[in-house]
Amino acid sequence: MNNLEKEIISLLEKKHKFIGDDCAVFDDFVITTDSLVEHVHFDLNISTPYQVGVKTVCANLSDIAAMGAKPEYFLTSLSLPPACPFFIEGFLQGIEETLSRFNVELIGGDTTGSKTFVFINAVAIGKVINKPVFRSGAKVGDKIYLAGVPGYSAIGYYLIKNNIEIKDPNYAYAVKKHLEPLPQVEEGIIIGKNNLATAMIDISDGLSKEIGEICRLSGTGCILYSQLFKLPEIDLFEEKDLLNYFLHSGEEYILLFTSPLEEDEITEFLPEAYVIGEITDEREVLLEVGYSLVKLKDLTYNHFDNRKGLY
Amino acid sequence: MNNLEKEIISLLEKKHKFIGDDCAVFDDFVITTDSLVEHVHFDLNISTPYQVGVKTVCANLSDIAAMGAKPEYFLTSLSLPPACPFFIEGFLQGIEETLSRFNVELIGGDTTGSKTFVFINAVAIGKVINKPVFRSGAKVGDKIYLAGVPGYSAIGYYLIKNNIEIKDPNYAYAVKKHLEPLPQVEEGIIIGKNNLATAMIDISDGLSKEIGEICRLSGTGCILYSQLFKLPEIDLFEEKDLLNYFLHSGEEYILLFTSPLEEDEITEFLPEAYVIGEITDEREVLLEVGYSLVKLKDLTYNHFDNRKGLY
Repeated sequence: MNNLEKEIISLLEKKHKFIGDDCAVFDDFVITTDSLVEHVHFDLNISTPYQVGVKTVCANLSDIAAMGAKPEYFLTSLSLPPACPFFIEGFLQGIEETLSRFNVELIGGDTTGSKTFVFINAVAIGKVINKPVFRSGAKVGDKIYLAGVPGYSAIGYYLIKNNIEIKDPNYAYAVKKHLEPLPQVEEGIIIGKNNLATAMIDISDGLSKEIGEICRLSGTGCILYSQLFKLPEIDLFEEKDLLNYFLHSGEEYILLFTSPLEEDEITEFLPEAYVIGEITDEREVLLEVGYSLVKLKDLTYNHFDNRKGLY
Repeated sequence: MNNLEKEIISLLEKKHKFIGDDCAVFDDFVITTDSLVEHVHFDLNISTPYQVGVKTVCANLSDIAAMGAKPEYFLTSLSLPPACPFFIEGFLQGIEETLSRFNVELIGGDTTGSKTFVFINAVAIGKVINKPVFRSGAKVGDKIYLAGVPGYSAIGYYLIKNNIEIKDPNYAYAVKKHLEPLPQVEEGIIIGKNNLATAMIDISDGLSKEIGEICRLSGTGCILYSQLFKLPEIDLFEEKDLLNYFLHSGEEYILLFTSPLEEDEITEFLPEAYVIGEITDEREVLLEVGYSLVKLKDLTYNHFDNRKGLY
């Protein structure tokens, strides 16, 4: 996050309570809106229009899931440059197939022109199940859970950019995870229905940044234990690289949540979830690696500087 | 509307019922989303960021008003190029002042980077009052009403572009109407509450196009009587130019609706409203000018060809 974005967010946080969370809340609904800009969030040399459609749905439904809510309705707006009519059909197919997978209804949209790039905006609306799960609810002593293995999206991007094709299901999974990610809609509903989480977020901007958000908004710190991490299984990389991918890969759309419940109480509902750390009162995000304790730096993607390092 | 946009809309109409209307409907709510793209929908050489904020709110609340609903919540997303931090503060001020004028709450948003231009997306949510008013409900014999005088927005643009400054309240009104339009929120609520309209739309793309939309979706035609038009009062233009502005000026945000009620039954609730024509079963949009009857051509703005003719 650079100074401009910090300034905007601090401006908005001063005036409104909403900006900290994935979704805004109204009545019994949560709502999220996300923009995807060509050359910033997607590149048509890497993704097909179909895959851009899938990712658009994923990003928004993931925000709904992160509130412990059930996604129900979807709208999408497209701004297209004149030379881009081919984009529509594949894009809509990606949108519609992914929505129908999660029983979400496409209820509206808008199309306009654009001078140069494709610009997409989407809106997802979800129904609150019990109560919305905010980012700010973490309590000292809560365990920190991940509902999946992060890292594959950035690895997939690396494999595509470097034309590495290895016949191995994990490599194929990484590429698929980058190009056609799916949101953890079922997991979000289970967490909401059973009140499993005190705070929740999806790690679309990377674990290291997102756990920092939970801590910042909850007024806490945390410690992550690297020996508990389930690293991506890609034999191309050494462990330290895999750790780096695990901590900083964005566009993962995996749920990260805090809970006072023990691991077996969580895995009863979510077999894939596991503890990676705990909430402390230190106001620092610490990482235990081997015998050393390091303050975790946020190395993830900054919207306003364009994508550097990990894509 | 060019072939691409027609194709998209026909593709969506085939699959979904939603695309004809200003808003989508879910539960007791209506929702609209609109994108505004720099150099297509606004130009920072003409509008200040504050005015872009005002227009963003106007475009969306006007869509809610056109469903006979009451706007309640608003979200806005911004994609900003790196060199554009100055934009934020004025833009947000325009958004917030206009929302508070209509008691609408800003509940969320998103900020991302953009390579070149400013892209804005906004979402407005309204509460249905009695039932949503669709575009498709016009009946043969209904009268066609306008809730204001269209034409001033395009005239305002003309005055600005040609550096015409004349000390006259109507000229000032035209410029204001172009730069800081306001939606007919109160009028929409009155129409919804009292079931005044069988079909409604806002004329953001110009009267001639929007009456065509009502007719197309209602399976009807219409005849407009030019002697009933209340033309803009700007002495710079001849009557035929004023008629042209009246029929084709976009960004007017005036409610156009059909009703079986007589004019005095309407003006009891809406003193500014007046009849301009009636719904027929001919499937043509006809205009009576003097003693001749002409088929009205849609000369308004086409999103995908960039703005031509009237801005």
